[in-house]
Amino acid sequence: MSGPGILRVPLGSIAAGVIALPPEAASYVVRVHRLREGDRFVVFDPELGVEADATLESVGRRSAEARIDAPRPAAVRAGRRVTWIQAVGKGDKMDAVVRDATELGATRIIPAISARSVARPGEDRSQRWRRIAVEAARQCGRGDAPRVDAPMSLAAALAEARAAEGGALGMCLDPYAETPLGARLAALVPGVEAAFAVGPEGGFTPEELVVCAALGFERVRLGALTLRTETVCAAALGALIAVSDARAG
Amino acid sequence: MSGPGILRVPLGSIAAGVIALPPEAASYVVRVHRLREGDRFVVFDPELGVEADATLESVGRRSAEARIDAPRPAAVRAGRRVTWIQAVGKGDKMDAVVRDATELGATRIIPAISARSVARPGEDRSQRWRRIAVEAARQCGRGDAPRVDAPMSLAAALAEARAAEGGALGMCLDPYAETPLGARLAALVPGVEAAFAVGPEGGFTPEELVVCAALGFERVRLGALTLRTETVCAAALGALIAVSDARAG
Repeated sequence: MSGPGILRVPLGSIAAGVIALPPEAASYVVRVHRLREGDRFVVFDPELGVEADATLESVGRRSAEARIDAPRPAAVRAGRRVTWIQAVGKGDKMDAVVRDATELGATRIIPAISARSVARPGEDRSQRWRRIAVEAARQCGRGDAPRVDAPMSLAAALAEARAAEGGALGMCLDPYAETPLGARLAALVPGVEAAFAVGPEGGFTPEELVVCAALGFERVRLGALTLRTETVCAAALGALIAVSDARAG
Repeated sequence: MSGPGILRVPLGSIAAGVIALPPEAASYVVRVHRLREGDRFVVFDPELGVEADATLESVGRRSAEARIDAPRPAAVRAGRRVTWIQAVGKGDKMDAVVRDATELGATRIIPAISARSVARPGEDRSQRWRRIAVEAARQCGRGDAPRVDAPMSLAAALAEARAAEGGALGMCLDPYAETPLGARLAALVPGVEAAFAVGPEGGFTPEELVVCAALGFERVRLGALTLRTETVCAAALGALIAVSDARAG
């Protein structure tokens, strides 16, 4: 029931029983995906990482009822805890970063305001990024969505990430760093949280790099070239997965 | 003269001497970046991976002359040869893949037509992708741009990539594969060419996966989640860089 191809529908407060689906979920199941009575799907609570099999019981003009089976921990969840601190830049680049980070297993995304950030996003932007994270989790088959914080200063974001239970290995991506990311990832103990910080277009200022270092974020580089800020997330999180797998293999 | 911040201008047929800059380069240097007589910049030939220091000598109403110093091999070039085969999907996703592949060191990009490709792009699209590759090379500080082939069938693309001088390790990204990408990359001998094949939205068909295997492309997965086709390139090439660095470190 969790195989490829089965429809996954985000839903809060999952409990066994017959329920009226909330309007958005009902519309998604009935109108977008044209499921009929008796068809099966999976509901998941992206906040708790819980999911359950579901059967469409009845379809009304503007409503739909579903029978929810017993909830279980989501089959596919992020493994290691990973925090992605992204300094907010121009346009909709943060949207792309939230999508990439979710697909590649981040468990927390902190939008940070840095010296070269163009604007201070409001709470409506955070709400948008949370919706994008839930939708990306649904699409990639993940049963938990990353937590997306409200925007905060870079220093606050770094301190938050480092204060994680058990401590986190902090890394700050910088094309002029000496240490290759791969070398640092290879030394990352399984189970230990990883936290990454990435600047906006133009990168962090020298003062911000000092703050990163003071808060325990080591400067690392990924390759010899200067990546756009919106490329770094997929490249670094892909690297984290592959280096972890390479060591396990 | 190749440090961060210096303007890099793509230029064909670089030779020492005073030349009239081609109109596009002249406009870029004088109007976009407002360089003045005596200012220095770097010209690079993205096809040959050659660069040279240059000085703006004179600026006319619609022209500009520059003194070009002796050409040298580009300071920053891709290391290992890497071929990226991308099955063409919807919209402008291929644009993003060309940018990501260039920033992350691919040396050849082959747009492939697969069963689930929506359309067969014409030669004008290839020209566009070549321009994007040169511009991405300029932005990331790379002195060589990847070769971008005209679109071809998936089978032809796989055969082309495998026919590389000295042979290439072929990998086909597939979320349902057993082998983790990281394990395969860890076994990649330094200097050996790597070739990746990625399907469009919806992935390769079962028949295409058989063709991939027959032509020596092993199925590998990157993590437990289903990535969008446009995320795979940055994640896999970031992984290649990091695993190579981890082993060297």
